[in-house]
Amino acid sequence: MKKTMPQHKLPYYFQLESGQNLQDASLYYEVLGEISKDKEVVWVCHAFTGSASVKDWWASLFVENGGFIDLEKHSVICANMLGSCYGSTGPNSVNPETGEIYGDDFPLITNRDAVNSFIDLRKALNVTKVHYLIGGSLGGQQALEWSIKEPEVIENQILVASNAKHSAWGIAYNELQRQAIELGENSNEEEQQKSLSLARSIAMLSYRSYSDFESSQNGKAENGEWKVSSYLKYQGKKFNGRFSIKSYKILSKMMDAHNISEERGGNLIEVLSSIKAKTLCIGIDSDNLFPVEEQKLMSEHIPNAKLEVIKSQKGHDAFLIEGNLISKFIKKHLSNTLYEEI
Amino acid sequence: MKKTMPQHKLPYYFQLESGQNLQDASLYYEVLGEISKDKEVVWVCHAFTGSASVKDWWASLFVENGGFIDLEKHSVICANMLGSCYGSTGPNSVNPETGEIYGDDFPLITNRDAVNSFIDLRKALNVTKVHYLIGGSLGGQQALEWSIKEPEVIENQILVASNAKHSAWGIAYNELQRQAIELGENSNEEEQQKSLSLARSIAMLSYRSYSDFESSQNGKAENGEWKVSSYLKYQGKKFNGRFSIKSYKILSKMMDAHNISEERGGNLIEVLSSIKAKTLCIGIDSDNLFPVEEQKLMSEHIPNAKLEVIKSQKGHDAFLIEGNLISKFIKKHLSNTLYEEI
Repeated sequence: MKKTMPQHKLPYYFQLESGQNLQDASLYYEVLGEISKDKEVVWVCHAFTGSASVKDWWASLFVENGGFIDLEKHSVICANMLGSCYGSTGPNSVNPETGEIYGDDFPLITNRDAVNSFIDLRKALNVTKVHYLIGGSLGGQQALEWSIKEPEVIENQILVASNAKHSAWGIAYNELQRQAIELGENSNEEEQQKSLSLARSIAMLSYRSYSDFESSQNGKAENGEWKVSSYLKYQGKKFNGRFSIKSYKILSKMMDAHNISEERGGNLIEVLSSIKAKTLCIGIDSDNLFPVEEQKLMSEHIPNAKLEVIKSQKGHDAFLIEGNLISKFIKKHLSNTLYEEI
Repeated sequence: MKKTMPQHKLPYYFQLESGQNLQDASLYYEVLGEISKDKEVVWVCHAFTGSASVKDWWASLFVENGGFIDLEKHSVICANMLGSCYGSTGPNSVNPETGEIYGDDFPLITNRDAVNSFIDLRKALNVTKVHYLIGGSLGGQQALEWSIKEPEVIENQILVASNAKHSAWGIAYNELQRQAIELGENSNEEEQQKSLSLARSIAMLSYRSYSDFESSQNGKAENGEWKVSSYLKYQGKKFNGRFSIKSYKILSKMMDAHNISEERGGNLIEVLSSIKAKTLCIGIDSDNLFPVEEQKLMSEHIPNAKLEVIKSQKGHDAFLIEGNLISKFIKKHLSNTLYEEI
């Protein structure tokens, strides 16, 4: 899974919010469309199990698929977040202090840590302005943190199916996914796979909706099983081939700890009110995990913000599935931006 | 957990829908308020993890708590369903054919099997008319089946947070609960308890709602854990003391198989249209597991039916928590019944 190039070395002792250091860590990142002064920078923050390869999971944002990103005009940058298993330093990396794989000793990474690592990369790339910062779900949480941290750098941000503070409901789903993993974690590989598969399936229920399953997973499969049971097992199995148990636990804790007002000397609304970036919040009407009220809260209190809502029965996953609608809203937002100028 | 009296012996070879027989099986049941010709019969079908002791879990239906049931006027009958662990024959009973505990060899029981066992008990009790048949969730599924099976016996039925066919969404939640149980089932007692606890916690998410958790489980507990994590662990632990792993699996499969149109020579709407009982469907606006559209479907197609919706943020669990509202709707329904006469 690990790609080796290009890799951005973070400062040898990379300071984390927890007080710990992450030593000799690096970020795997990808740039689409060479960075130049004539182009605008689109920085994408990927979601929980995403990667730096934006075209793999958000192809619909690109002009050839009806999206707004045109590599003649834009450079797209995406870095894999610390703690993930797609190329950046994470729990499957070697701890230089011990010479052993981190595993569960990997420190808690917060969204602010992720943002600090992105800022370090941004500077190394000589990027002084991020014209469009885009993130969905956990990626949107990081984008929002970044817009607070560097108000002079982030011009526009687009936050899709995201929030300003992770909810008790969201934490509950993540907690049960970790419990599922822990049931099989110290057992043989088969049990480990079953437990990660169960964690992924629990997540799937938070990502989808009643009406989505009712229209696509009704009745029995050819093998006599309920169609939805087969579907969830298949999704779980597929996921085993592409994600790591240890990263899963670390990143879900990162999401749980998200709260932009934490140690900022103001409540959530005060912090939202201080944001400078022109902001487009996009919600999904069937999203049970990051319900529209969360994007509404952000758009109501960020001074220069708008809210758009995707009508879809796909639930939270619509942020990946309904990329064309997202593109439509972004294009509408951009055309307004052109006229209004910040 | 098993009470020994009163116990109703079913026919020695009790025929199941699957074609199998259940041998020497019996129902544990309770009667509140002696059965007599001067009184009306209220038959209650309990839900998934409920018992025959109605006052333990639905006390709010009784007149002393503002409910409609008055034991001067009503006799209340409730039988523990086959497959459960509260007194009737289930997977923890001894299989008379082998002399061993059934365990996973216990046959699949359907809602129709449960109803057939209730009918056998009804006849033994010389009850010829059920004036009010009431059930919530799985209990409502059984009530509905019964009203189709014995249209001349069931006068009124009250179906709370229930449906005519279990949804793919509901099956998905049950599937993951069974997967959780199976992860620890063949391990030591501690792992078994963890896995049943996880199953119960997954169920809790389907029983509650975002806004319920947001208002009651926000932030951290005293031990530094997320409050909602502590809450779910506590609920899971408590459940271990009161329910059996094998019954859990059997009864969740019973719910999955619910479909009133199965082998009835008509589609769901035709079968609903044939129902004779005067019916009150009660839904809960925040119910994600049995959403209001399911009760709406029933009330639209059962010829003599009404729909009432409980406003509550408690999700599906409101069918237990908001008993006073349920009572209010039932009393309203009864006062109409008195004037309209069927």
